[in-house]
Amino acid sequence: MSGLLWPGDHRAGDHFSDDEVVRCMLRVETAWLAALSDAGVAPTAAAVDLEQVAETIDPAKLAIEAEAGGNPVIPLLAAVRGALGEHPEAAHWVHRGLTSQDTLDTALVLALRGCADAVLESIDRQVEALAALADEHRHAVLAGRTLTQHAVPITFGLKAAQWLSGVLDARDDVREARARLPAQFGGAAGTLAGPDLLLRLTDAHGDAIALARSAAARVGLPWSPPWHTTRAPITRAGDALTRSTDAWGRIARDVLVLARPEIAELAEPVEVGRGGSSTMPHKVNPVLSVLIRRAALTAPALAAQLHLAATEFVDERADGAWHVEWQALATLGRHTLTAAAQTAELLAGLHVDTGRMARLVASAGTALLAEERNLAGHIGRDDDVDDDPAHYLGSSDAIIDTILERAGSGGTP
Amino acid sequence: MSGLLWPGDHRAGDHFSDDEVVRCMLRVETAWLAALSDAGVAPTAAAVDLEQVAETIDPAKLAIEAEAGGNPVIPLLAAVRGALGEHPEAAHWVHRGLTSQDTLDTALVLALRGCADAVLESIDRQVEALAALADEHRHAVLAGRTLTQHAVPITFGLKAAQWLSGVLDARDDVREARARLPAQFGGAAGTLAGPDLLLRLTDAHGDAIALARSAAARVGLPWSPPWHTTRAPITRAGDALTRSTDAWGRIARDVLVLARPEIAELAEPVEVGRGGSSTMPHKVNPVLSVLIRRAALTAPALAAQLHLAATEFVDERADGAWHVEWQALATLGRHTLTAAAQTAELLAGLHVDTGRMARLVASAGTALLAEERNLAGHIGRDDDVDDDPAHYLGSSDAIIDTILERAGSGGTP
Amino acid sequence: MSGLLWPGDHRAGDHFSDDEVVRCMLRVETAWLAALSDAGVAPTAAAVDLEQVAETIDPAKLAIEAEAGGNPVIPLLAAVRGALGEHPEAAHWVHRGLTSQDTLDTALVLALRGCADAVLESIDRQVEALAALADEHRHAVLAGRTLTQHAVPITFGLKAAQWLSGVLDARDDVREARARLPAQFGGAAGTLAGPDLLLRLTDAHGDAIALARSAAARVGLPWSPPWHTTRAPITRAGDALTRSTDAWGRIARDVLVLARPEIAELAEPVEVGRGGSSTMPHKVNPVLSVLIRRAALTAPALAAQLHLAATEFVDERADGAWHVEWQALATLGRHTLTAAAQTAELLAGLHVDTGRMARLVASAGTALLAEERNLAGHIGRDDDVDDDPAHYLGSSDAIIDTILERAGSGGTP
Amino acid sequence: MSGLLWPGDHRAGDHFSDDEVVRCMLRVETAWLAALSDAGVAPTAAAVDLEQVAETIDPAKLAIEAEAGGNPVIPLLAAVRGALGEHPEAAHWVHRGLTSQDTLDTALVLALRGCADAVLESIDRQVEALAALADEHRHAVLAGRTLTQHAVPITFGLKAAQWLSGVLDARDDVREARARLPAQFGGAAGTLAGPDLLLRLTDAHGDAIALARSAAARVGLPWSPPWHTTRAPITRAGDALTRSTDAWGRIARDVLVLARPEIAELAEPVEVGRGGSSTMPHKVNPVLSVLIRRAALTAPALAAQLHLAATEFVDERADGAWHVEWQALATLGRHTLTAAAQTAELLAGLHVDTGRMARLVASAGTALLAEERNLAGHIGRDDDVDDDPAHYLGSSDAIIDTILERAGSGGTP
Repeated sequence: MSGLLWPGDHRAGDHFSDDEVVRCMLRVETAWLAALSDAGVAPTAAAVDLEQVAETIDPAKLAIEAEAGGNPVIPLLAAVRGALGEHPEAAHWVHRGLTSQDTLDTALVLALRGCADAVLESIDRQVEALAALADEHRHAVLAGRTLTQHAVPITFGLKAAQWLSGVLDARDDVREARARLPAQFGGAAGTLAGPDLLLRLTDAHGDAIALARSAAARVGLPWSPPWHTTRAPITRAGDALTRSTDAWGRIARDVLVLARPEIAELAEPVEVGRGGSSTMPHKVNPVLSVLIRRAALTAPALAAQLHLAATEFVDERADGAWHVEWQALATLGRHTLTAAAQTAELLAGLHVDTGRMARLVASAGTALLAEERNLAGHIGRDDDVDDDPAHYLGSSDAIIDTILERAGSGGTP
Repeated sequence: MSGLLWPGDHRAGDHFSDDEVVRCMLRVETAWLAALSDAGVAPTAAAVDLEQVAETIDPAKLAIEAEAGGNPVIPLLAAVRGALGEHPEAAHWVHRGLTSQDTLDTALVLALRGCADAVLESIDRQVEALAALADEHRHAVLAGRTLTQHAVPITFGLKAAQWLSGVLDARDDVREARARLPAQFGGAAGTLAGPDLLLRLTDAHGDAIALARSAAARVGLPWSPPWHTTRAPITRAGDALTRSTDAWGRIARDVLVLARPEIAELAEPVEVGRGGSSTMPHKVNPVLSVLIRRAALTAPALAAQLHLAATEFVDERADGAWHVEWQALATLGRHTLTAAAQTAELLAGLHVDTGRMARLVASAGTALLAEERNLAGHIGRDDDVDDDPAHYLGSSDAIIDTILERAGSGGTP
Repeated sequence: MSGLLWPGDHRAGDHFSDDEVVRCMLRVETAWLAALSDAGVAPTAAAVDLEQVAETIDPAKLAIEAEAGGNPVIPLLAAVRGALGEHPEAAHWVHRGLTSQDTLDTALVLALRGCADAVLESIDRQVEALAALADEHRHAVLAGRTLTQHAVPITFGLKAAQWLSGVLDARDDVREARARLPAQFGGAAGTLAGPDLLLRLTDAHGDAIALARSAAARVGLPWSPPWHTTRAPITRAGDALTRSTDAWGRIARDVLVLARPEIAELAEPVEVGRGGSSTMPHKVNPVLSVLIRRAALTAPALAAQLHLAATEFVDERADGAWHVEWQALATLGRHTLTAAAQTAELLAGLHVDTGRMARLVASAGTALLAEERNLAGHIGRDDDVDDDPAHYLGSSDAIIDTILERAGSGGTP
Repeated sequence: MSGLLWPGDHRAGDHFSDDEVVRCMLRVETAWLAALSDAGVAPTAAAVDLEQVAETIDPAKLAIEAEAGGNPVIPLLAAVRGALGEHPEAAHWVHRGLTSQDTLDTALVLALRGCADAVLESIDRQVEALAALADEHRHAVLAGRTLTQHAVPITFGLKAAQWLSGVLDARDDVREARARLPAQFGGAAGTLAGPDLLLRLTDAHGDAIALARSAAARVGLPWSPPWHTTRAPITRAGDALTRSTDAWGRIARDVLVLARPEIAELAEPVEVGRGGSSTMPHKVNPVLSVLIRRAALTAPALAAQLHLAATEFVDERADGAWHVEWQALATLGRHTLTAAAQTAELLAGLHVDTGRMARLVASAGTALLAEERNLAGHIGRDDDVDDDPAHYLGSSDAIIDTILERAGSGGTP
């Protein structure tokens, strides 16, 4: 991940870092060892916690070695076995019955779950900020704009509620996609033949599906029939993350318009050192919105890569499509996390200049009431309307309430 | 829609045709007239069924006139008013209180709902065919292939069950996206100010939201807070349609591999005249799979256009993004419908050559059992495995059953 | 093509219509017949002009029949043979030695060439309008804006010159892509084995490559080694068209910002009936820019489909990728043509309010000169700068001249 | 860059790494200092080589600080000034007159040029390998395949020549895109007002454009009118890189088909440790092709992001689009470099089993000659064709020669 070329990337923390992916893979192998041991296939001594060897693993070295087999699991296993000198049973049994895709898919699902949780935390903060904005400014009239031109009056509360509505859609979908992330334990071609053989030869208890369920439970995931080649869990997650950046980018684009100096109804939160220019000391650039918008313009193509990959999962393991997913997913995840945090910060500190909104409404004159006059004239009641934009707001208040109610009833994931 | 350059397009029937879009817009305006009349805003005489004037409307003429205002609603209204000579009240009241986006969004939602229903019908046929294939061939052993190379044995039943699993994922998502399609009735800037004014000035009953709900109910849709600028209903539908083509394309790619003459485990259903070549009379090309795959390679970019549009919904109506959606949605819808029908036909008539599968397994020799021998050797039980690939199928049967059970419990949307 | 959902589509005229594609295919087959006859393979009587039967061909019927073989050439040939009752020799010889892909690729190249010519005509008009704007307004000072905020002064002439620069880049690339469009005459698998056989068996003169060159020349195209599976001619054309919409969309986005009522430095050309609203009679929406922007947001994904197709051209004819190209190319072509014409019209009639620009510069106060003061202060020469933004324009004039010179030296394609 | 999730990434070396981007930015600032000094604006003492401070710069720290201003130039300058304690004149003059986009655009162009050079080196190796394959195997007959089915005979030499043809198209375009990369020196809003002011106030010689040209020459690039908002240099480079991955992915897909065990006409070069499986010791997976294909499926969406960005360059510096380019460009560059090296290795060691090709041709029987028989029969000469596929190869040899000639005449960039 090149933070230099993706300013704000540090906000994504360790999510989808090489270190985290290694740790997630180790957790998956640990769970499998424990399940093998618990079922009586492997001896108790095999059930060690592999995360203890994490510090002996050099992800940069793994990355280079990963090319030979086309994935990082193979060199990881070599490294793990090498590091397990004191645990020969674990070295003997690690990964037995699994396939690389089991390990990596489940590891990426774990990383994705962590990412989704962090996104949802940011969304909670956004929802809180937006609900406050919607409520506080429910009577702040500003010009509604369509196709860039003044249309009819709205309130800033309504605009904030609309922003909120998009964020709530995203929250629904991220939650749901997160809830539908399964572990992957299927064996070489999705038949669980390896685990089944091990169970039979060792006269262990339970069947292979039970063994897979047991391992899945140890990493806190449901098991599902092997999905080596049916990738809805991945594309759904990608779509949900993109639904999030869609919502945030739409907010950012509004802020970018309304923070233009000629409009100046909104301003980004001021923080020392932010928004500066390399050459123009007076400038305060709306940097958060710029960076959020960047993520939003980028995400759809990444999610589309996941779909393209999904439809190319030929055979029992794809000839390139699986490999497409990894970086697309990690990049999309990190971009989304960055934008999530930036949006939360933007909304929490957004400066709303209601005075300026009112002045622009005043200077817009009767344009904002043209529809009202037109409708009234249409039914011969021209005289029954006045010239106060605050009287032509329709159901804005009730719409705000409806959206606020939805926000409040969201519960926890 | 250019069927010449999208062979099979006729399978999409009238969905998203200009004629259908016009009819859907007329249904929306009809519903609004009825709601206005029912609320006491407009006289009873205004509540006419506008579909009666559909035949007087020339979509080709509308299409040309649509450029001036940037959307087809404006010229449609002019044409409707012109055609309503015998219904002056209807001409007077049509569209009052609405905005172009209300009419077109709701019309496209209606078209989308029809499209989703037709897709789900095809999916039902696919599910039936796949369930039969999975069950019938649950013991037909063939070579599992990963990264194009022979891996371990599977059964064709399991492969069909995996295909089914992808289709069931698509079914879930198309159903859900369909269920979450709302009507759009929000007025010029989403405040319902126009409808509210009309209700007030005419002392009619109910509020603007009730009026909007009433109109929505008349086209069989739920009302939601105006979503002029929050486009999750659209992107969700696009994602679900793409999840469908993902699943079908993945099947098609398998068929294209397995129908190669050197493999020849599968063949497309034979129909007189299909699959021919312009110059090589002997050829029987897997045309259905080719065309399905074409749709699957195309869909992700179209769904991504919808996401890109979604994040560009600035202001109270976007400055170009809304306009992006229309053709992207229609194209994606028609492509999906075509591929849906082609996939249903492919699966219903798929020729499965289990004898050929068995012969290839036999000629693969011990390669398919290398994992088994490796695992057995690993625990010193080499002698306890035999050389019959049919004995190394793990939980294939149980996995098939799990997926079949899911297929059966699907219920209706 | 659904003009209703792509307002302005009629501007693309007949380009890439079903009728045109049919005519182009007939021109290709005509050229081949003539070449066969000229070489002495076919009798003179076979060399008929097949466009004469165009009117007997029903594209809608062809479109339906095209599904069986997966492309429109097969049913076209059946229809042509059926219509050639009076020309049995032509019916006998039509298409002999060719493959469907020869006919359709060359036909699409012909359509693409016509499209490129029409785009270049619009570009010429744009160049003329932009050069005039750049020259006329080279001293009209307005606020330069970066990251939406006021930066330093520029002139509108410079902005127009920058727009022009983008259009000139597009002109270069469309011209070059057009010049590199080859005919496709390769036979079933790109070996020209069929034509070679016919030449040998009939003791005709010349070799198969000469025959192919002869046919290519008859449709005014160079011949190149068969490019059935190497698609740079197609992706280059797609990239060049997208480079055009990139340039126009960037102009449109500027217009959309600068035509906002709070800025109002630019306005779209006024035409009766354009820019109207279905409900707000006062509005004049910047419809041209909205529609241009729509095309610009859409084109990159279509060009990407062509690249994706290009990399999937497996075997000697692809298993779906070729089929992806057709509609993507036609859609991209028509969208580009529409946007080309709209941009030409926008620029020819653009209203530039230099007074408004000056007033906004004045009201921006010293912000626009902060860089100047900062630089001067930095070297202790604060007193040597004045407060006139017109004195801080650097090399704007010379830059304009450089770009104008490039525009003028363009020559003809 | 996460090599763990993009196996083979180390092949891209330092290109587009944070370290390299920092160095490139320092080279740009160094060139500017030298130009300022040379023109007499800054004292001679200011003209220091800033790369000497590179080792004091921590890219990870810069990356974090880059968020505040939205780009890495601002914190870089702070760090540079801090590190220039012994060079107060350099600290004083560094970056004066420039804008962040000048520095970063030119730096990325330098990185891109280095990337293009490395890609072209790999392409040279590919061309060499492909030319050898085409020539060596010009008489090796194999089955031509269209839509996955046997068509007519071809030679492997012709297939290799077709692969070569695609690579030569890529070579043309990468060379041309590289040649058209300009430096960016335009100042805050592309007017060169800052440099112009400095020249005037210090009575230095030359004008601002001459100064910009001088700086550009010092980094070996041509100067062009500021292209802050006209991004053809970037999109052209992206398109050319994608044209490369298109060509390589098409080769990889052929290898993946022809290396299937049931076909086995080709095999990847064997190297100890490559292609292994985590669980199936017998497998030799075609890993290079899998990884090349992965890059090819990914590139079009990245290039499309660059186009999307290009059309969003509003104002004198964009509100997010510029920021989109950086990581898209770096990712596309690194992916292309990786795939370039992998393709060169694949082709240099490709195992061609001409015996297997001949056996498959034999087993295909008369199918491969159906076209020949059909054509001969059509003109009543059935008896004049024999059953040897080697006699039905048309102009394959001449086509190979034409492509080889093009390869040889390539010259150097």
